[in-house]
Amino acid sequence: MFLGKVVGKVVSTQKSEKLIGNKLLIVKKIDEKENLIGDHFVAVDTVGAGANDTVIVVTGSGSRNSSDSQNDIPIDASIVGIVDSIEWDEH
Amino acid sequence: MFLGKVVGKVVSTQKSEKLIGNKLLIVKKIDEKENLIGDHFVAVDTVGAGANDTVIVVTGSGSRNSSDSQNDIPIDASIVGIVDSIEWDEH
Amino acid sequence: MFLGKVVGKVVSTQKSEKLIGNKLLIVKKIDEKENLIGDHFVAVDTVGAGANDTVIVVTGSGSRNSSDSQNDIPIDASIVGIVDSIEWDEH
Amino acid sequence: MFLGKVVGKVVSTQKSEKLIGNKLLIVKKIDEKENLIGDHFVAVDTVGAGANDTVIVVTGSGSRNSSDSQNDIPIDASIVGIVDSIEWDEH
Amino acid sequence: MFLGKVVGKVVSTQKSEKLIGNKLLIVKKIDEKENLIGDHFVAVDTVGAGANDTVIVVTGSGSRNSSDSQNDIPIDASIVGIVDSIEWDEH
Repeated sequence: MFLGKVVGKVVSTQKSEKLIGNKLLIVKKIDEKENLIGDHFVAVDTVGAGANDTVIVVTGSGSRNSSDSQNDIPIDASIVGIVDSIEWDEH
Repeated sequence: MFLGKVVGKVVSTQKSEKLIGNKLLIVKKIDEKENLIGDHFVAVDTVGAGANDTVIVVTGSGSRNSSDSQNDIPIDASIVGIVDSIEWDEH
Repeated sequence: MFLGKVVGKVVSTQKSEKLIGNKLLIVKKIDEKENLIGDHFVAVDTVGAGANDTVIVVTGSGSRNSSDSQNDIPIDASIVGIVDSIEWDEH
Repeated sequence: MFLGKVVGKVVSTQKSEKLIGNKLLIVKKIDEKENLIGDHFVAVDTVGAGANDTVIVVTGSGSRNSSDSQNDIPIDASIVGIVDSIEWDEH
Repeated sequence: MFLGKVVGKVVSTQKSEKLIGNKLLIVKKIDEKENLIGDHFVAVDTVGAGANDTVIVVTGSGSRNSSDSQNDIPIDASIVGIVDSIEWDEH
């Protein structure tokens, strides 16, 4: 999984039927200082995330394991947690 | 998933039988300003996308979940939505 | 999937039994001008591809969907089409 | 799999039910000199790893094979070993 | 799959039970001139590979297809062949 920030939302009417009812949020990875890095992703929200939330994103087949209703939908990334805090270890 | 733009089409006669009847479109990722970035991909169209459409692309095993007829075909990317609009959050 | 060019072949005697009889070709991605880019991959040929052919390569679990005999072999990339032509859209 | 170092921990209350009870550690890849490189990942701990441990991380569907209870949880990376030592070959 | 060279070995006592008995080798990709490139990976050996061997590595779910005993172990890369020779095509 990776840590990211919700930076937007995608609106799509002409889409796979199996995606209907799913909230498609745009997420960017963050680094240790919570700067936005890399390309953005589209992820299905499964925990009620919203604008500027710091979130946990799972990719690949695991993204369809949040609930049984998602097992066979055409997605490869979903938001599975909203971050309360990140504790960085002393090196 | 990622956001991309349809930039071309691939014609292939000598191909896996299971791909026959599938439209193979070439897609490039876009950034926040809708500039084309990175390498291009070949994706199977499942929603009637065409030239210059902004689309949602799912990769990996999820790309075969659009319909039951696609479950066991040899693909790793498919277009699952045509984008109406992208709403970027205020930071 | 991605577009690539066949650039070589791998010969391996001491290999997984399940790979015996499979042609292991080396492929490099191509860009819009058909220049070779990025790292090379090893892919199993399923359509009779050969030296310098422009091909369509599927990666991941989809690479084992070309035929039932390939479902459980240890591969992650296969050539599923030989390209006749690529049509790039006007921007 | 890759070799990494545990560099932190994520606390998340509002998360997928299936993640409850799983320790979410932050890991960074290491190079031959054990310098931290690349982006960080979030991985589920399955072997009792802790701060600054050098660990083995498996990604993708394999990350859910550590135990039967993990087969269908929404994760794509897990820590499957704590490294005792790394032996580099003479070139 | 990719071509790589065995560059080391990982010793780990505190690991997933399902990994016990598997040889964990460290591999780096090679380029056309057999220079080592990119990050190193940890891969399970399935063909008796050793130090400095040039090998074929499969990643993802395919890495668990070498033998039935490996189907459900927590790995994402395995060595499936030792390279005898690489034949590069004339361009």
